[in-house]
Amino acid sequence: MKDKLIDYMKKFIDLNEDEIEKMAAEINIQTFQKGTILLEQGEVPTLCYFVLKGCVRQYLIDEEGREITSNFYTEEQNVTIYNRHTQDKSSKYSLSCVEDSVLVVGDLSTEQEMYEAFPVLSDMTRKIMEENIGAVNDEFALFISQKPEERFKALMSKRPDLIQRVPQHQLASYLGLTPESLSRIKKRLL
Amino acid sequence: MKDKLIDYMKKFIDLNEDEIEKMAAEINIQTFQKGTILLEQGEVPTLCYFVLKGCVRQYLIDEEGREITSNFYTEEQNVTIYNRHTQDKSSKYSLSCVEDSVLVVGDLSTEQEMYEAFPVLSDMTRKIMEENIGAVNDEFALFISQKPEERFKALMSKRPDLIQRVPQHQLASYLGLTPESLSRIKKRLL
Repeated sequence: MKDKLIDYMKKFIDLNEDEIEKMAAEINIQTFQKGTILLEQGEVPTLCYFVLKGCVRQYLIDEEGREITSNFYTEEQNVTIYNRHTQDKSSKYSLSCVEDSVLVVGDLSTEQEMYEAFPVLSDMTRKIMEENIGAVNDEFALFISQKPEERFKALMSKRPDLIQRVPQHQLASYLGLTPESLSRIKKRLL
Repeated sequence: MKDKLIDYMKKFIDLNEDEIEKMAAEINIQTFQKGTILLEQGEVPTLCYFVLKGCVRQYLIDEEGREITSNFYTEEQNVTIYNRHTQDKSSKYSLSCVEDSVLVVGDLSTEQEMYEAFPVLSDMTRKIMEENIGAVNDEFALFISQKPEERFKALMSKRPDLIQRVPQHQLASYLGLTPESLSRIKKRLL
């Protein structure tokens, strides 16, 4: 299982055998049952995750009391709550496991130490963030202009597995649709 | 003018007098007329920018031929096209100056050299990206659930100046609205 994380890291940086061995010793893998809450909205996050197997949902309750699903993380995606821009460093989001999940668990309090022990990691983090920010910018730009049916089609082509894996009312929320609209669109398209 | 960029950098990293002096010597400030195209959709970006004064619009023509405004960058915002996640490294967006603008111009081809010359910069870039990604994630999550009127209200409270500064059809596009809907919402609220 650790190989998956190492392979992922190798996409961004060169690692020699010695570094791989030392890092592998630091990797903390844990299994979580479906329904486990990893983080509650309002808490200050102390951990980050990398999905080896399973699915983690990111969601929030907005000021109007509506629950909004803002992301689903699946295999080989990293789950980080970025809170540097917020005043009190608390999370706007909750995280919960939609499926039984196997996750690499990272401790944010030792992040700086890890960069000092393994300087290549700082480079890697920067590159991963560049990918993430590019992807979320693109998704956002498309979302602004897409009609509901186009959003569903885009998801079908990019993440077809997701449509089968998650509760449909959560999927609807993620697409900015009512469950009824999603159901109509699916009937029309599938 | 260079002070503004140095002050911005100091929010993220500690800089000593020597570093400030050396970096200030590298800072390239240019003035661009309103209407200047900084980057065309499909080109591979070679430059990045930091807005000292003015406004830069990011937009794209989607597959249906619609023009979508996906961002406006104003004072003390950095303008970077993140393309690491794309196959051919070309930009999905165009960039143009909505106003006469004074920008710091950064050369992406010397980015790696800059990190080597000034190792603190790598740390700074990571922190700036953490802020950016956190902010865009939050905006996106809200956008999914917000009704058009709520989107406009959110913009009024966060970036009231923008509403006065940019053409209204571009603002409408940025909010995912038709110009007519935006005009109705403004009449109701202002």
